[in-house]
Amino acid sequence: MGCFDEGHFNGELENGVSIGYGEIEDDANKVAIEDAVKVLLLGLGEDINREGLKKTPLRVAKALLEGTRGYRQKVKDIVEGALFPEAGLENNKIGHAGGAGGLVIVRDIDLYSYCESCLLPFQVKCHVGYVPSGQRVVGLSKLSRVAEVFAKRLQEPQRLADEVSLALQQGIKPAGVAVVLQCTHIHFPDIESIFLESNQKEWGKIDVSSGSGVFENENADEWADFFYLIKSRGVDMEKIHLRGSSDQCWCPSLSAISSKASSKIGLINSSMVTAVSSILKSLGEDSVRKELAGTPNRFVKWLLNFQSIDMDVKLNGSLRGGIKPLIAAGEVVNNVDKQIYTELNLPFWSQCEHHILPFHGVVHIGYFLSEGFNPIGKALFQSIVHFYGFKLQVQERLTKQIAETVSPLLGGNVIVVVEASHTCMISRGIEKFGSSTATIAVLGCFSTDLASRTSFLQSIANATSSGGQ
Amino acid sequence: MGCFDEGHFNGELENGVSIGYGEIEDDANKVAIEDAVKVLLLGLGEDINREGLKKTPLRVAKALLEGTRGYRQKVKDIVEGALFPEAGLENNKIGHAGGAGGLVIVRDIDLYSYCESCLLPFQVKCHVGYVPSGQRVVGLSKLSRVAEVFAKRLQEPQRLADEVSLALQQGIKPAGVAVVLQCTHIHFPDIESIFLESNQKEWGKIDVSSGSGVFENENADEWADFFYLIKSRGVDMEKIHLRGSSDQCWCPSLSAISSKASSKIGLINSSMVTAVSSILKSLGEDSVRKELAGTPNRFVKWLLNFQSIDMDVKLNGSLRGGIKPLIAAGEVVNNVDKQIYTELNLPFWSQCEHHILPFHGVVHIGYFLSEGFNPIGKALFQSIVHFYGFKLQVQERLTKQIAETVSPLLGGNVIVVVEASHTCMISRGIEKFGSSTATIAVLGCFSTDLASRTSFLQSIANATSSGGQ
Repeated sequence: MGCFDEGHFNGELENGVSIGYGEIEDDANKVAIEDAVKVLLLGLGEDINREGLKKTPLRVAKALLEGTRGYRQKVKDIVEGALFPEAGLENNKIGHAGGAGGLVIVRDIDLYSYCESCLLPFQVKCHVGYVPSGQRVVGLSKLSRVAEVFAKRLQEPQRLADEVSLALQQGIKPAGVAVVLQCTHIHFPDIESIFLESNQKEWGKIDVSSGSGVFENENADEWADFFYLIKSRGVDMEKIHLRGSSDQCWCPSLSAISSKASSKIGLINSSMVTAVSSILKSLGEDSVRKELAGTPNRFVKWLLNFQSIDMDVKLNGSLRGGIKPLIAAGEVVNNVDKQIYTELNLPFWSQCEHHILPFHGVVHIGYFLSEGFNPIGKALFQSIVHFYGFKLQVQERLTKQIAETVSPLLGGNVIVVVEASHTCMISRGIEKFGSSTATIAVLGCFSTDLASRTSFLQSIANATSSGGQ
Repeated sequence: MGCFDEGHFNGELENGVSIGYGEIEDDANKVAIEDAVKVLLLGLGEDINREGLKKTPLRVAKALLEGTRGYRQKVKDIVEGALFPEAGLENNKIGHAGGAGGLVIVRDIDLYSYCESCLLPFQVKCHVGYVPSGQRVVGLSKLSRVAEVFAKRLQEPQRLADEVSLALQQGIKPAGVAVVLQCTHIHFPDIESIFLESNQKEWGKIDVSSGSGVFENENADEWADFFYLIKSRGVDMEKIHLRGSSDQCWCPSLSAISSKASSKIGLINSSMVTAVSSILKSLGEDSVRKELAGTPNRFVKWLLNFQSIDMDVKLNGSLRGGIKPLIAAGEVVNNVDKQIYTELNLPFWSQCEHHILPFHGVVHIGYFLSEGFNPIGKALFQSIVHFYGFKLQVQERLTKQIAETVSPLLGGNVIVVVEASHTCMISRGIEKFGSSTATIAVLGCFSTDLASRTSFLQSIANATSSGGQ
């Protein structure tokens, strides 16, 4: 069962925490994480006393402890009392049903977990099934609750699937348990590469499976039944990730670690790396587990994308001249009266300063060109968007800053809409999986002229409905 | 603001509970609800000591208290400390952005609430926005958290929208707050009508809006911006439900209450009605609030659909001969060797015996016709499905019972798949909005012949992908 040996599991099932850690003292851990987050913020060049950041260490500590509460939960407590006697088929009948052999699957359970390689949250569509035996079934919600226990830890997809399947096998002792996970990891580019590569991938995806009991054999008939019943979810049993093959591709931070990157690691404030190690320990993780060895370095490297430095350094210095300078260089076009120029769906990546969690999405810019001004090329818009994205931000400020920066280049009549998904809306207590946030800044005539505004907003709606987003 | 006067609200904001109730004693309330649920189960003719029901009163009490925790939450606690200073546009610029006028919308917040008319949960897609003022913005998640406080009470869509909008207006004091809710109510037919009416509606839907501050005027420009930014969600600002118009249509239990039904109410064990009234009181509701006056009667009437009575009474007696008798009456067809007969997507409605919450979906039946047997007509299959649906159930047992009932009518080779959404998977702590459950029973050769099984499962997948479900 890979990294998940039986002895460990029995400790798990009985105590709910990894052996050797004992009772977690939440308060002490919270304070330790807060202190570590302060070190990280200072390492980014931030003023930890400014209003938006003052409570960030506390918020991050609470969110991380909440997001890894699985270390402190007991599978046994969840399953106990939720097993119900349920007859199988009457004696004279041949077959399987009810509490004796009738396959049960709960599909499309939304989960998120934290990637053990880079500490970013990843999303999981979880399908879990079991074949009852012993004339008993388990309450359906328990399948979801047990999956949640293991999702709320630092994870890797195959390991998560294995742990859920084994825990259910041991907890409810059915004929077998099957787990299929469709996992999606945000693909967060480095500021160094984002200007140079076109067609940035937004997501890394992987499907994994794990089976115990009758599902241990990958060719068992039971798997065929299972896969047919989740067929419309786009899981292809032929293409499912094979155990042990190329795990390295899943987390973008693993493939991104190149010699170039590791040379940069040499420059990292080592106190930031130590701070991340201390966070892992405070969460109840085994910080010498080999999968976690490079995690602090990788997290710090990623975090350093959001250093508080000025635009010249970021766009010109750090990027070594890979982009155009910050002056308008578009072509002159006929300045038709009241023509709205638009640049839609410019991707951005940013970091919520309240939770140190990513948010990302697209920026839409519309403008009237005042006399004496030239239109701006897409590359410059995109550079400005990236510049304001790659720092600790809030979406409202990002929107305003983009508008204020492009406005003087165009003559003052500008509208900016930012649409984003916020990780902090899913990876904390509230877990609103599908939510998205829209913000607007309107400058000049857009602030008073409803017709111009709706004309621009309609062009966004059109672009979205035609698959632009 | 309709039923929501300012004085009440101030009490709300300060104390988090309705004025006059004071500190809720959760334990005493839990016990009171448990006792009331026992009365309801006895009224349904159930043995409250049988294994599946033993802990049902406790589970229902916990779920109801959890699902109405909003009565015991304080908006002030949520918003306090989540207001951040955020500059507006620089002085020399005309327009709105950031903490001064830049519209912020959080879209697609999944909520569920309890219908005050019938006590069934209903689902809400919530879009909430505000126009910041005073150079400050609120943490995005707070919009969701405040909406949740009011969703977790007995509600009606317009009232929910009004309460969220007013609470945010008072809590964060912005230039204005806008709320749009897309609400979906399960349309649960009576057993009396289900056999008689074809094309049962599964859902009642309504879109409502509420605005405060600059959004108080329904024709304000700000509403146009808001609606354009949620346009792809299918909300039509022209068709949005107008305040005060035909509220009676929303909850199916209100339109279903007819003279026939009220005559039946006369027969209801009045102790059941008293029990529901006591539940409302234990949740912290004002049981003399006029909107709740008929709720206990309606809930009991609905619950009585699930009385534990035998099939003859239910199908023939209670239905007054509206359906065919329980013998196979299909046509004789050529019995081609190994031809699988299928009857797909037979709708069913049922009630989870663990939580007294609805689950519903479709039943798929496949069979080989043994020599000397005739195929069964769809109407008979549907009657059998309804019969086993309309009682306190678990999905595993429902699947088994349908298979066992049709099997002897067809010669013993039968496969039954049930696909269902369980309200208990969303309206309690776990809130897995999109999940669905599949169960199988296989009899005779279907239990050993994988090819037959997959051929049938493939036909379900085909029917689903072509919009059958």
